[in-house]
Amino acid sequence: MRYLLTITYNGEGFCGWQKQKNGRSIQEEIESALFVLLKEKVNLVASGRTDAKVNAYKQKAHFDCETVVKNISRFLYSLNSILPKEVKVLEMEESELHARFSAKNKTYLYKMYKSEVELPFKNLELRVDKDVDVELMQKCAQFLVGEHDFKNFCASGSEIESTVRTIYSLDIIEHGQDVELYVCGNGFLYKMVRNIVGLLLEVGKGKISIDEFKDFAFGDKIVAKKTAPPYALYLYDVVYR
Amino acid sequence: MRYLLTITYNGEGFCGWQKQKNGRSIQEEIESALFVLLKEKVNLVASGRTDAKVNAYKQKAHFDCETVVKNISRFLYSLNSILPKEVKVLEMEESELHARFSAKNKTYLYKMYKSEVELPFKNLELRVDKDVDVELMQKCAQFLVGEHDFKNFCASGSEIESTVRTIYSLDIIEHGQDVELYVCGNGFLYKMVRNIVGLLLEVGKGKISIDEFKDFAFGDKIVAKKTAPPYALYLYDVVYR
Repeated sequence: MRYLLTITYNGEGFCGWQKQKNGRSIQEEIESALFVLLKEKVNLVASGRTDAKVNAYKQKAHFDCETVVKNISRFLYSLNSILPKEVKVLEMEESELHARFSAKNKTYLYKMYKSEVELPFKNLELRVDKDVDVELMQKCAQFLVGEHDFKNFCASGSEIESTVRTIYSLDIIEHGQDVELYVCGNGFLYKMVRNIVGLLLEVGKGKISIDEFKDFAFGDKIVAKKTAPPYALYLYDVVYR
Repeated sequence: MRYLLTITYNGEGFCGWQKQKNGRSIQEEIESALFVLLKEKVNLVASGRTDAKVNAYKQKAHFDCETVVKNISRFLYSLNSILPKEVKVLEMEESELHARFSAKNKTYLYKMYKSEVELPFKNLELRVDKDVDVELMQKCAQFLVGEHDFKNFCASGSEIESTVRTIYSLDIIEHGQDVELYVCGNGFLYKMVRNIVGLLLEVGKGKISIDEFKDFAFGDKIVAKKTAPPYALYLYDVVYR
């Protein structure tokens, strides 16, 4: 049997999705909880790995197992009782999908807020200054929409054959003091979203012009990347069909 | 000089507003930080004390001091650098108001969400079941609006002369899975808001009828109180004029 899970987690205390020798991972928390209930070891395959401290509203992951789960809602209830409060499974369904290869697109959300002071209830959002020009960031962001080579947004050290990806939409929404950036694409390179946010913020802060932005984004010059911090990043949704 | 502060805090790790021998209080955190900058001991008077774990978006408090603060925005910056991340001062102004006695009305917010599972990003909100009838709660809540004797909502042990208070508005707003209760009044008895939320939830869950609610609320029968937990309660605003 194959089951597809919809998972939400607060990444703050974790080394990321993937199992690691030293560090608490989301994958291991869920695999261990599944082992308690299924009495068999399963390998949980996510739509994509998230880095240390990165959060998820709706991560998707599948696993294959011998067991047939008869009462899924009761199983979910038990599973969530075992899981720590930072990791919860929202849905579980029988599926033939591959969590990673069947994914059509993914959306990430990056949460910011405008304030002179770091606020107590916004510790999983990035504080930015009040005079950051969000309209300009939104304008600039549109140059990234479409199929492009995003090699300049890919953290060095990653070994990937192609750095071409398609961004379907990139929207920065301001309401009150909150600034939310949603980016939807067919796939994302290592640290790509955080490097996009970092470079857009340079524009919003008036540190670089739109022309410099385009040059940094698609030019051949090697520029030090501005990587936005991970705690404000959320895997927002994964769509399969 | 008298200064009025607007303060926000996450009450999770605190024994409440008021200084206590054993326990970390909001009052003491701010008084200590003020002492570092002013080099004089001040007594911070809040619009009202909040209990252990209760939060505030906009608490108000004043203090009197000898020092004249010349550059308030620079002072605020320094003050917030000293304060822990759970407590921040949003505004500071010269004032002749008394934070408690000049207050005209106060608004509290109680945050709930409908879900079968406790969610990672909602640890400062109360989870309620999906079938809680919010419309019925809203209908029922209207019986509390106006001037009433709220003795049945007052935690025993408090020594207060009059238990009559006026509630100006009580609104329960549902959007998506979120349920927010806003209550505005001229003053609140000890644990009054949490006891109101608790009793309204009994109605929403179908455990008591509207008639029973009215009886519990204003009758002479002594009924065991249903006190909603403190971590989902926020002092939302205090209005002076």
